[in-house]
Amino acid sequence: MSPSSSRAEQGNVRRGRRPAGEDTRAAILDAARTEFSAKGYDASSLRAIARLAEVDPALVHHYFEGKAALFVESMSLPFNPAFLIDTILAGPQQDVGERLARTFFDIWESAKGRERLVALLRSAVSNEDAARMLREFLAREVFGKVAVAMAVPQPHLRAGMAAAQMIGLALMRYVICFEPVVRASIDDVVALVAPTLQRYLADPAAGLAAKPRAE
Amino acid sequence: MSPSSSRAEQGNVRRGRRPAGEDTRAAILDAARTEFSAKGYDASSLRAIARLAEVDPALVHHYFEGKAALFVESMSLPFNPAFLIDTILAGPQQDVGERLARTFFDIWESAKGRERLVALLRSAVSNEDAARMLREFLAREVFGKVAVAMAVPQPHLRAGMAAAQMIGLALMRYVICFEPVVRASIDDVVALVAPTLQRYLADPAAGLAAKPRAE
Repeated sequence: MSPSSSRAEQGNVRRGRRPAGEDTRAAILDAARTEFSAKGYDASSLRAIARLAEVDPALVHHYFEGKAALFVESMSLPFNPAFLIDTILAGPQQDVGERLARTFFDIWESAKGRERLVALLRSAVSNEDAARMLREFLAREVFGKVAVAMAVPQPHLRAGMAAAQMIGLALMRYVICFEPVVRASIDDVVALVAPTLQRYLADPAAGLAAKPRAE
Repeated sequence: MSPSSSRAEQGNVRRGRRPAGEDTRAAILDAARTEFSAKGYDASSLRAIARLAEVDPALVHHYFEGKAALFVESMSLPFNPAFLIDTILAGPQQDVGERLARTFFDIWESAKGRERLVALLRSAVSNEDAARMLREFLAREVFGKVAVAMAVPQPHLRAGMAAAQMIGLALMRYVICFEPVVRASIDDVVALVAPTLQRYLADPAAGLAAKPRAE
């Protein structure tokens, strides 16, 4: 995945969509959507995307910071994962659950953020390719990074539990529209959900026993 | 919604599907699906379903215990809500979170339960009518009843938070297939999620402040 300045090898070009140079950036985004959808996030490479777009791989690196940034832009995600992670991990560890909840709601409560969120949830639930690329991206670039940074046992399972809580909450508030969750203020929802996320992501004892142990 | 022995008034029949008497039970189920989908759970009545099926309302009561039972059967839900509630509410209050989690996983981990769950989630996410009838049913007959029985503040919001956690978990494990959540044992998942449900449903102090107050 390191940048390369060799010309795209014509023999490996699978499908050309636009003549090179016409609208390189759009061609790369188009190729990225095709590649991510076909192979998922993990197995896609910038080199393969360059080949598909019939551009030099160096141009992909010129236009996009890396695979995550290209994914975010090609999917029109309403957030930058690097910024998201920095925000969540900045500040005291005992508030990580609240920061995570508030950061997500800041995105979701904007009109554009909500619209993309609902579209993404719908496609991930109805389409297996969409589900795969989204879960791989979220695991690798978002929740996985938070969980690993927290240094708790079973970090990826805990990240999955936190993601499950937030995805379920998004469904109840924006898609299924369960009245009491729709009507609640963000402060009330955060007050309920933040300790849940905090426990999953930062309490090393969470999950060791279903019931608190007798001392 | 009380039973009536008057014949279905022909003037109010909106649509007849099968000749009365041919397969009354199937005709009622068919009419129920149409009515629930068009009006949601709350606004549907057994009387209107009888009219649509062109049968005497008393026959609906003869074949089905009530609206909830008719909904369960017409949607092929893999559980009986009355039984579910009894199971969750039976036993000590400090284990209600664990009982709720285990009861749902008992259903979901069966082949039939999982198949119906995935189909229901997909239809609720992609179709607004399906979302409405499902959320009204779950609010009225399942989570709402648990929350009210628990006598905590904001019972319906808390029920919604518990539902969000369980629906998100179902999505991650059975639909989006987020690897660490798929691979985890039910015991490990329950150990993580039970205290979350317990807090939402049975801890009166939950949600009163995002951070624990200094004493």
